[in-house]
Amino acid sequence: MPDSTPDSTPASTPPLTPPLDLAADIVTLTAAICDIASVSGDEATLADAVEAALRTGTALQVERHGNVVVARTDLGRAERVLLAGHLDTVPLTDPPNLPTRLDGDQLWGRGTVDMKGGVAVQLRLAATVAQPRRDVTYVFYDNEEVESSKNGLGHLARSHPHLLAADFAVLLEPTNAQVEGGCKGTLRVEVEVPGKAAHSGRPWAGDNAVHKTGALLTKLAEHQARVVDVDGLTYHEGLSAVGIRGGTAGNVIPDRCVLTVNYRFAPDRSEQEALAFVRDFFAGYPVTVTDSAPGARPGLDRQAARDFIRDLDVPVTAKEGWTDVARFAQFGVPAVNFGPGDPMLAHKEDERVPITQLRDAEAALLRWLG
Amino acid sequence: MPDSTPDSTPASTPPLTPPLDLAADIVTLTAAICDIASVSGDEATLADAVEAALRTGTALQVERHGNVVVARTDLGRAERVLLAGHLDTVPLTDPPNLPTRLDGDQLWGRGTVDMKGGVAVQLRLAATVAQPRRDVTYVFYDNEEVESSKNGLGHLARSHPHLLAADFAVLLEPTNAQVEGGCKGTLRVEVEVPGKAAHSGRPWAGDNAVHKTGALLTKLAEHQARVVDVDGLTYHEGLSAVGIRGGTAGNVIPDRCVLTVNYRFAPDRSEQEALAFVRDFFAGYPVTVTDSAPGARPGLDRQAARDFIRDLDVPVTAKEGWTDVARFAQFGVPAVNFGPGDPMLAHKEDERVPITQLRDAEAALLRWLG
Repeated sequence: MPDSTPDSTPASTPPLTPPLDLAADIVTLTAAICDIASVSGDEATLADAVEAALRTGTALQVERHGNVVVARTDLGRAERVLLAGHLDTVPLTDPPNLPTRLDGDQLWGRGTVDMKGGVAVQLRLAATVAQPRRDVTYVFYDNEEVESSKNGLGHLARSHPHLLAADFAVLLEPTNAQVEGGCKGTLRVEVEVPGKAAHSGRPWAGDNAVHKTGALLTKLAEHQARVVDVDGLTYHEGLSAVGIRGGTAGNVIPDRCVLTVNYRFAPDRSEQEALAFVRDFFAGYPVTVTDSAPGARPGLDRQAARDFIRDLDVPVTAKEGWTDVARFAQFGVPAVNFGPGDPMLAHKEDERVPITQLRDAEAALLRWLG
Repeated sequence: MPDSTPDSTPASTPPLTPPLDLAADIVTLTAAICDIASVSGDEATLADAVEAALRTGTALQVERHGNVVVARTDLGRAERVLLAGHLDTVPLTDPPNLPTRLDGDQLWGRGTVDMKGGVAVQLRLAATVAQPRRDVTYVFYDNEEVESSKNGLGHLARSHPHLLAADFAVLLEPTNAQVEGGCKGTLRVEVEVPGKAAHSGRPWAGDNAVHKTGALLTKLAEHQARVVDVDGLTYHEGLSAVGIRGGTAGNVIPDRCVLTVNYRFAPDRSEQEALAFVRDFFAGYPVTVTDSAPGARPGLDRQAARDFIRDLDVPVTAKEGWTDVARFAQFGVPAVNFGPGDPMLAHKEDERVPITQLRDAEAALLRWLG
């Protein structure tokens, strides 16, 4: 179906790469997508190929915004679910870990894990599920592996928020084919411990800021982080010093020690609540926020999510890191991570995915949507 | 008396600056010396002037080694004492705090405190005490205000150690005209606390090196430093963190924290004993020495020192910082600091000395030597 939005790229531009064949099996399609290199900032060719394949191979409504491609059903279903994946990868290795290589039961190469296997699953579903039980929105976006300000999903959320409306979202990041629900929030602060400088030959004339920081470090070491159940999943919080600096010279009592602390908080807390907790923890010392991002509830109490868990029949755990699912949470859309590939192999030289995970992920999502 | 050592500079070189008049009063002489700028590394002109003045204005044996000038009596006395002072200053201010300016009862300008007042006192004594009760060696040296490897006294100790032989030494550094005996030693070490890196979203998978350092900081904060009597003076030790660093990224549990510690130890301990104490204090953690210098006993039990204290009749305290007196201690020569000027004004923009301190210091040392 032709797209009518004014800022879409004309589909008539002939692609320089072979078209993606959505009828191919998941392993062949994953390899084809990986072989179109798309390091962050250089996703146009792959976005072109994805857009063209969706326009020619599906009946979905397709929109293109920059290098973000959105394809949707509009069947008037009671619920809408959203599947999202990023098109970009971290840089290739030297020598390049592309083109992909099938070795026994594993597909090797950049993007096989993070996360072109997931992109291939999305495209296979888009091509094969013409009448899903719920309306579906597929989102393919750019610049996930770089600074947050460039993130294509973030840009879309600001420019076309209605396209992200859904009752439940699945981000196809690698999770070793299990469901990781929601994500923890992250808050980074600097805590400044003041002191008074003096010559170290006369330390009693000063007030050693580094010594005073010892009490805060001990408090951190002894802190029992919260373990919180949210929507049926268990999140383990963490309150950690990730940096410390103090001292100006080898013979001067430090007049200042700066502790950098990262608080990873369960999604039952807002960013504001997280900051209040940290300020209270370090009461008496100036706290400066250097980074903050909200967590995301898994939303496993929603019907679409319950069906998702039931249909997939794979282990369900809490996501302990931070992912783009939090961007959905900001719109009130619960979200989970589910995708093929071992996240420990993401960004590695020996990035590779078991082909059974590709097939199983496709089959599992087909059960849910079909 | 002409000098016959081969490496002396011929006195026939005409000085470009007015000659120093050792018959002038102490304030006039101090001003004249200050007005020959001699920032570290640029002491030749002042060394020339000092050498010329000693050769023409005294009967002392004069030697010149680089920009170090040594003048000695050789009267066959039972004891020899040594007076030493450095010719260099820290850089001038902008605009320059020279020429000196007499304002009421204070002489203002670079070097008035650190330590051309002391140099002037040495020159006045050299010119006026022809028959001292003890043989006297006067040493004027360069590069005291810069890195230790350039220190003129250190160079002389290595090239002509016999010139530093004495029963007792006085370094005319500013002490507010009281006697500061000996000096503490200084040891600087890095203590490494190891940990294990992990993503800060899963801190339990790592071992936070910064958190573990808290126990060491608390131990430092609670440490009761020794207060030690040595040769009748009281030294206050100090064991201080002077720096701390740890952390690699905002989302990584630090696998390493490095604490820089400065131990200022009383002169009853050797460098080796000081290091053994520090290694024991931080038992279990690797300790790397980055700097070490011995302390110096005040030697107030020696006859020359006892007479010095009696004749001066000024307060006597322990030197809490480190000074060049330690260089004498390495030769077994006890040494004290005694000189005009408030050390808190050294290196400052408003460097200035009360002229009474100049006169009193000259008079006190005259009583002792005369």
